[in-house]
Amino acid sequence: MAGKIVQKAYSDIKNLKIQGATNIAIAALEALKSAKDRRQLSEIVLLLSSARPTEPLMRNGLRYVAFNVHQHYDFKNSLGFWADKYIQMCKSALERIAEIGSKRIVNNSKIMTHCHSTAVTSVLKKAKDKYKEFEVYVCEARPLFQGRITAKELASHGIKTNYIVDSAKGTYINDMDLVLVGADALTAEGNVVNKIGTSELAYIAKEADVEFGVASELLKFDPVTEQGYLEPIEEREPKEVWERPPKRVKVRNPAFDVTKADLIDFVVTEEGVLSPHNILSMTHDKYPWMKR
Amino acid sequence: MAGKIVQKAYSDIKNLKIQGATNIAIAALEALKSAKDRRQLSEIVLLLSSARPTEPLMRNGLRYVAFNVHQHYDFKNSLGFWADKYIQMCKSALERIAEIGSKRIVNNSKIMTHCHSTAVTSVLKKAKDKYKEFEVYVCEARPLFQGRITAKELASHGIKTNYIVDSAKGTYINDMDLVLVGADALTAEGNVVNKIGTSELAYIAKEADVEFGVASELLKFDPVTEQGYLEPIEEREPKEVWERPPKRVKVRNPAFDVTKADLIDFVVTEEGVLSPHNILSMTHDKYPWMKR
Amino acid sequence: MAGKIVQKAYSDIKNLKIQGATNIAIAALEALKSAKDRRQLSEIVLLLSSARPTEPLMRNGLRYVAFNVHQHYDFKNSLGFWADKYIQMCKSALERIAEIGSKRIVNNSKIMTHCHSTAVTSVLKKAKDKYKEFEVYVCEARPLFQGRITAKELASHGIKTNYIVDSAKGTYINDMDLVLVGADALTAEGNVVNKIGTSELAYIAKEADVEFGVASELLKFDPVTEQGYLEPIEEREPKEVWERPPKRVKVRNPAFDVTKADLIDFVVTEEGVLSPHNILSMTHDKYPWMKR
Amino acid sequence: MAGKIVQKAYSDIKNLKIQGATNIAIAALEALKSAKDRRQLSEIVLLLSSARPTEPLMRNGLRYVAFNVHQHYDFKNSLGFWADKYIQMCKSALERIAEIGSKRIVNNSKIMTHCHSTAVTSVLKKAKDKYKEFEVYVCEARPLFQGRITAKELASHGIKTNYIVDSAKGTYINDMDLVLVGADALTAEGNVVNKIGTSELAYIAKEADVEFGVASELLKFDPVTEQGYLEPIEEREPKEVWERPPKRVKVRNPAFDVTKADLIDFVVTEEGVLSPHNILSMTHDKYPWMKR
Amino acid sequence: MAGKIVQKAYSDIKNLKIQGATNIAIAALEALKSAKDRRQLSEIVLLLSSARPTEPLMRNGLRYVAFNVHQHYDFKNSLGFWADKYIQMCKSALERIAEIGSKRIVNNSKIMTHCHSTAVTSVLKKAKDKYKEFEVYVCEARPLFQGRITAKELASHGIKTNYIVDSAKGTYINDMDLVLVGADALTAEGNVVNKIGTSELAYIAKEADVEFGVASELLKFDPVTEQGYLEPIEEREPKEVWERPPKRVKVRNPAFDVTKADLIDFVVTEEGVLSPHNILSMTHDKYPWMKR
Amino acid sequence: MAGKIVQKAYSDIKNLKIQGATNIAIAALEALKSAKDRRQLSEIVLLLSSARPTEPLMRNGLRYVAFNVHQHYDFKNSLGFWADKYIQMCKSALERIAEIGSKRIVNNSKIMTHCHSTAVTSVLKKAKDKYKEFEVYVCEARPLFQGRITAKELASHGIKTNYIVDSAKGTYINDMDLVLVGADALTAEGNVVNKIGTSELAYIAKEADVEFGVASELLKFDPVTEQGYLEPIEEREPKEVWERPPKRVKVRNPAFDVTKADLIDFVVTEEGVLSPHNILSMTHDKYPWMKR
Repeated sequence: MAGKIVQKAYSDIKNLKIQGATNIAIAALEALKSAKDRRQLSEIVLLLSSARPTEPLMRNGLRYVAFNVHQHYDFKNSLGFWADKYIQMCKSALERIAEIGSKRIVNNSKIMTHCHSTAVTSVLKKAKDKYKEFEVYVCEARPLFQGRITAKELASHGIKTNYIVDSAKGTYINDMDLVLVGADALTAEGNVVNKIGTSELAYIAKEADVEFGVASELLKFDPVTEQGYLEPIEEREPKEVWERPPKRVKVRNPAFDVTKADLIDFVVTEEGVLSPHNILSMTHDKYPWMKR
Repeated sequence: MAGKIVQKAYSDIKNLKIQGATNIAIAALEALKSAKDRRQLSEIVLLLSSARPTEPLMRNGLRYVAFNVHQHYDFKNSLGFWADKYIQMCKSALERIAEIGSKRIVNNSKIMTHCHSTAVTSVLKKAKDKYKEFEVYVCEARPLFQGRITAKELASHGIKTNYIVDSAKGTYINDMDLVLVGADALTAEGNVVNKIGTSELAYIAKEADVEFGVASELLKFDPVTEQGYLEPIEEREPKEVWERPPKRVKVRNPAFDVTKADLIDFVVTEEGVLSPHNILSMTHDKYPWMKR
Repeated sequence: MAGKIVQKAYSDIKNLKIQGATNIAIAALEALKSAKDRRQLSEIVLLLSSARPTEPLMRNGLRYVAFNVHQHYDFKNSLGFWADKYIQMCKSALERIAEIGSKRIVNNSKIMTHCHSTAVTSVLKKAKDKYKEFEVYVCEARPLFQGRITAKELASHGIKTNYIVDSAKGTYINDMDLVLVGADALTAEGNVVNKIGTSELAYIAKEADVEFGVASELLKFDPVTEQGYLEPIEEREPKEVWERPPKRVKVRNPAFDVTKADLIDFVVTEEGVLSPHNILSMTHDKYPWMKR
Repeated sequence: MAGKIVQKAYSDIKNLKIQGATNIAIAALEALKSAKDRRQLSEIVLLLSSARPTEPLMRNGLRYVAFNVHQHYDFKNSLGFWADKYIQMCKSALERIAEIGSKRIVNNSKIMTHCHSTAVTSVLKKAKDKYKEFEVYVCEARPLFQGRITAKELASHGIKTNYIVDSAKGTYINDMDLVLVGADALTAEGNVVNKIGTSELAYIAKEADVEFGVASELLKFDPVTEQGYLEPIEEREPKEVWERPPKRVKVRNPAFDVTKADLIDFVVTEEGVLSPHNILSMTHDKYPWMKR
Repeated sequence: MAGKIVQKAYSDIKNLKIQGATNIAIAALEALKSAKDRRQLSEIVLLLSSARPTEPLMRNGLRYVAFNVHQHYDFKNSLGFWADKYIQMCKSALERIAEIGSKRIVNNSKIMTHCHSTAVTSVLKKAKDKYKEFEVYVCEARPLFQGRITAKELASHGIKTNYIVDSAKGTYINDMDLVLVGADALTAEGNVVNKIGTSELAYIAKEADVEFGVASELLKFDPVTEQGYLEPIEEREPKEVWERPPKRVKVRNPAFDVTKADLIDFVVTEEGVLSPHNILSMTHDKYPWMKR
Repeated sequence: MAGKIVQKAYSDIKNLKIQGATNIAIAALEALKSAKDRRQLSEIVLLLSSARPTEPLMRNGLRYVAFNVHQHYDFKNSLGFWADKYIQMCKSALERIAEIGSKRIVNNSKIMTHCHSTAVTSVLKKAKDKYKEFEVYVCEARPLFQGRITAKELASHGIKTNYIVDSAKGTYINDMDLVLVGADALTAEGNVVNKIGTSELAYIAKEADVEFGVASELLKFDPVTEQGYLEPIEEREPKEVWERPPKRVKVRNPAFDVTKADLIDFVVTEEGVLSPHNILSMTHDKYPWMKR
């Protein structure tokens, strides 16, 4: 049976006490370290993997550690070693993305983003640190207003920040030079799963011929999509959208949507700038352990 | 000087105490009836016309009454007569639109709408009254959530109603058979000015090859657009969007956007179904008084 | 009660013994002449109007005669007069279309058409009579292969004619200079109802940036579409498509589809070349009797 | 036989000594005044009409004068009267377009234009006269570099002017708020014939979702297009493009191209702002004499 | 000289007695086994390769066996071994595709397919075996009506099946959730060669924003396309289309068309789900013997 | 300090005395051979790399030689060896492209090209050498008219050649079967940097559904784009465009533009035909030394 540490990690992830793909991956791997033996390791991997449906960064981490540990004699030491190594991989991936992506931010440009993505804010803050001048438009991302986190973070870093409702992106898109969003998952055919509203933004950017980029770790590639599985789209509770809707009104609340590869101009990853159509082959090349 | 009745109408319209194009037009014309003489009539027309920037239905009413009264000897009687006549025109226009539009609602179809429009809800309720079965998806229309008014009104009329955040329209659009929205103003080249988010919806409907219709009185045609004036887009107070935004975050809050004619498949008007490219010539034909 | 002449016309139209919009209109009007009095006239109009769902040319003829006869004292003479007049209008409309349309056929060009349309073959034959050199590609128009009638008619008129399956239009479209099709009905928003496959052809022509024209009498405008009615699309018997389909295979056989106005570059009518968005206003202008 | 005045006008127009649609129309009408009698009038109309293929403004003027003179008893006086009246119509049409179009120029906007059009430069100069601030990008319009005339005219009027090669329009289009071009002829289906390169610009503006407007007199509508005639596209001498091309290189030099109605958002005319799909019905309404 | 077995295989393939890429490949390899020595092997490979122009699965098989056999001392044994191995590869590729593709079939969805493809029917039947509920629309695929084979096969497997003429795909496409077709050949730039009508279907699916997938073995990649050769498109006999066409009517009968990579959302292969742009690199990776 | 040879190469490249990517690469490598020791080698690499901003073929050559020489003991011999080897790689890459690309030229087809590219003219001349019949349309490529070099070269090779102004490409594009252009640089996401006007041509080809191919050495891939750097676009002197522009007219003269990967159907490289989305992975595979 999984111990208290694991149970807490599981429920904290499930109940959104821990948010952000990297934080979730770290929490899961820290909990995984508590495994006593190989059998328990497998149980914990199974349990934590099921905490939230759209968390490939975490699931890849659990898979990575399990894969590597199973090849070592010394269970306990190797467990810590590989868990820490994956955590380190996550962190340095973000740093690489910030460094590479910051070069794509052109002086005196305008950039639109949606919701909150650590990869995106890292890119923008790094560009600001290099004394680039630019302006950002942030969509609020109803129902949970994560755009406010982004707006706050950017403005407090000295970046010129505008905040708009999600419906206003069409009004401002023609003034933009770049749209940059994050990702929750990358798929085998090069699609990007991200906060609901992203695919709309991609269509509108295409319509206005504005460059559309994604900043995401290749570690968010979900290898099961290669086997035909569709990335599950979580539908969350109605009350997030409308506290007390009238009778007979059905509130629908999908949390993510899928942006097709052919709407995406480039992806900034820890391995450099790519076409979305290159995600699969680059992942095969760099992370062969992902595919069993 | 304008009397108390006029002052109250002016401030109620300005401060959104009175909402909805028809209600505003009625309030303005009722106030206009208080004019004592022709000079005062002109003053009141001028004052009320300026109460809100995007209200052609009211402005056309003021114009209509002034035009007709100036051709009569008996000022007082003709004032009442023409004001009432315009109010009646507004009401019967809505009824005609409901009747005509209801025929476009196909059994077992799915329809998406945005924000709140009396013309749209009239169409849908009339279709329901004819025992048609259909399902409606309502976008909430941040920042003021007028989609909630629509959802409530439709559901209480027995219509199967779904409610979604504005960003989710891309997720559901492929299941729709029709998008139907209202209008705040119609322009000379056939564009439609409506609640922010409408033009995005039109782009997405085009992308998914879903029919996009507008239900609107021709009386909302703004004749000054024929003279080259652009319909003004009101930018409202930031606090509607974010009560207390962090320092250095600039909140932008445009209330409307412009949907181009070539994204609109048809317009349901009091004079029948039209192409948006026919709005101008039909208005010339039916309402010659609009153009001086 | 309707007499034998009317009964025969009704059943011949219903059972496709009479085909082609003009032939059907003539047959109906000839039968209408047998009406003995005004009451019978109304009954016959009602009966014949219902013979087939998508025949506005005939229905407009019945409407035209009824409207005019009701304004005359001499029932019998005026009935013959107006019936003949409408028949003449149909014939001269076709001649005008042939004359005008033939000017749009450019020397050494390639033209694609679909199914069989008298308006289209008249245009092409008239152009050939003027010694223009061009080549035609005819789609066969499954299930009833009316493309064979077209191919035969054109080839026997000395026009260079190619014949292809409906699926091959995408292969040849890039070599075309023009697509020209007929119409069964025209709608208030400028859409064209025509043999199934037409809307596909229009999409593909748009994709390849090939001009897409329609040759049709304005007399095929269906005035009820202005009142919101959707032009009904006849679904015909499965056995036309597959004589003996296997059990549990459901054969669907819609006879027409709707091509949206914005896929149509021009319409050749008896009143000249138009944008499809002009159909409604031109009809109002030229045929005021269509609208009650 | 046509006298010397007419001969000179004919050859000056033919040899491009007189340029610009308005100048050409004026020259033709001034020459027309020399007609001695009705027979000569007809001869001169015929001769001058053939001077250049794409000059509907002139041809409409000749048609207008002939039509009106033929209804008067006093030949000589009426000839002068109607010729002057048409010249006046041309001039005031340009003024109206400048006034109306200037309202479409938004403060702090960027506008691209192509070649030289008096209607366009009138609009821009009028807007400048109203103290609007904006910036213009002018395409040079090879082979004859008429863009230089435009650039010079605008810059000397104090307008911020940029000059680019025709191939650079794709590089700058995303920064534009409006494209505004003139017209040599307007057609029945709403297409615009203008200097070669215009249709490319329209495609690129559509691709980038930039508003595309045309400034043109309705008097440039060519009524024969309604009868099916295609507006002829003059192919001019190779040496304009390449003085001494190598052997076996064929230089092609079409002077105009056709921009389809559905790429045009609006047309500024002497009768106000229109959809291109409204050109035909507006012309019928305002200039009934154009159509015989 | 090739023996009787080979001659029979050659003529059976050429005359369509054997149909379906896998059956053809098997027949060719079984015949190949009859080779007496290395010289004869080369002759047979040459002969069979030429039996039909668009059969890369067979040609890759011949190439595979020849390549491997030439590296072995024991000719006869190795010939049988590698021929059987390739046949096995074909079979297990189909099984893998069925397994992976079946996961892409969503419950309660509607899927359109064209013509007959074993890969597609395997996917759909496997999905049905997993108790998924869905409905299929099959286009008949004139001239040879292979859609009937598909319809029969699916219906007899208990799948809800609809059958339509090829021209009706535009009518039903907006109701679809997925289009899934097979392939005759895959090219270096990611295009798919398949039964005529496929590229039209892809355009229409794009227009309606419906997902477009291909189910195909990577073994159908044609390596000569990498060297610049265009996949040949067989044009078959006119009488397949029209038994006795009238004089002077030219019947054109191309059997395949090319669907461009950017119209294809994903490809289900034996190596998993891919972007079409990944076909080349995945083939290099998995089948290095294809490229000399 | 760099010697005279290097100084001359540097200034000849900078001042356009040497033109064409291959000529520039050869000149730079020949100069590089004069390096006396490893320190000087580094200095020369640095100097020559900065001669012009958009020359990845040269910069890759310098990088290639430096990389390889640093691994050898014998500096002088290895310097000559690797420099010559790279020069040879450039030459044989062009030959491979000519051979492969010539197979894509279809008999009786029409091909449009822009500016001058040795890769493109090699392809076309090789196709002609194989007795293929085709016709080429060359855009002049203002401001420097390099299209004239292309036209001359093709015509003197016996190829049917047409020459047009850059604005006329929209007029002829619908008659084309293929557009083929060269490249100055290839980027990580698959974009192509080429002479200004190329991206417009790509948009227009897409609009007209005409195949758009690029002929370019993979050696022109710029590896720094993988690290996020944007390929710099040289803006050249105004006087190239307009010798003496009027006061206050600002002449803009960017030399290149960027064509997005999704507008490109295929790339002909020394390693075969590719999707542009494959450029990155193919380069990794074939030229691992490009990436440090």
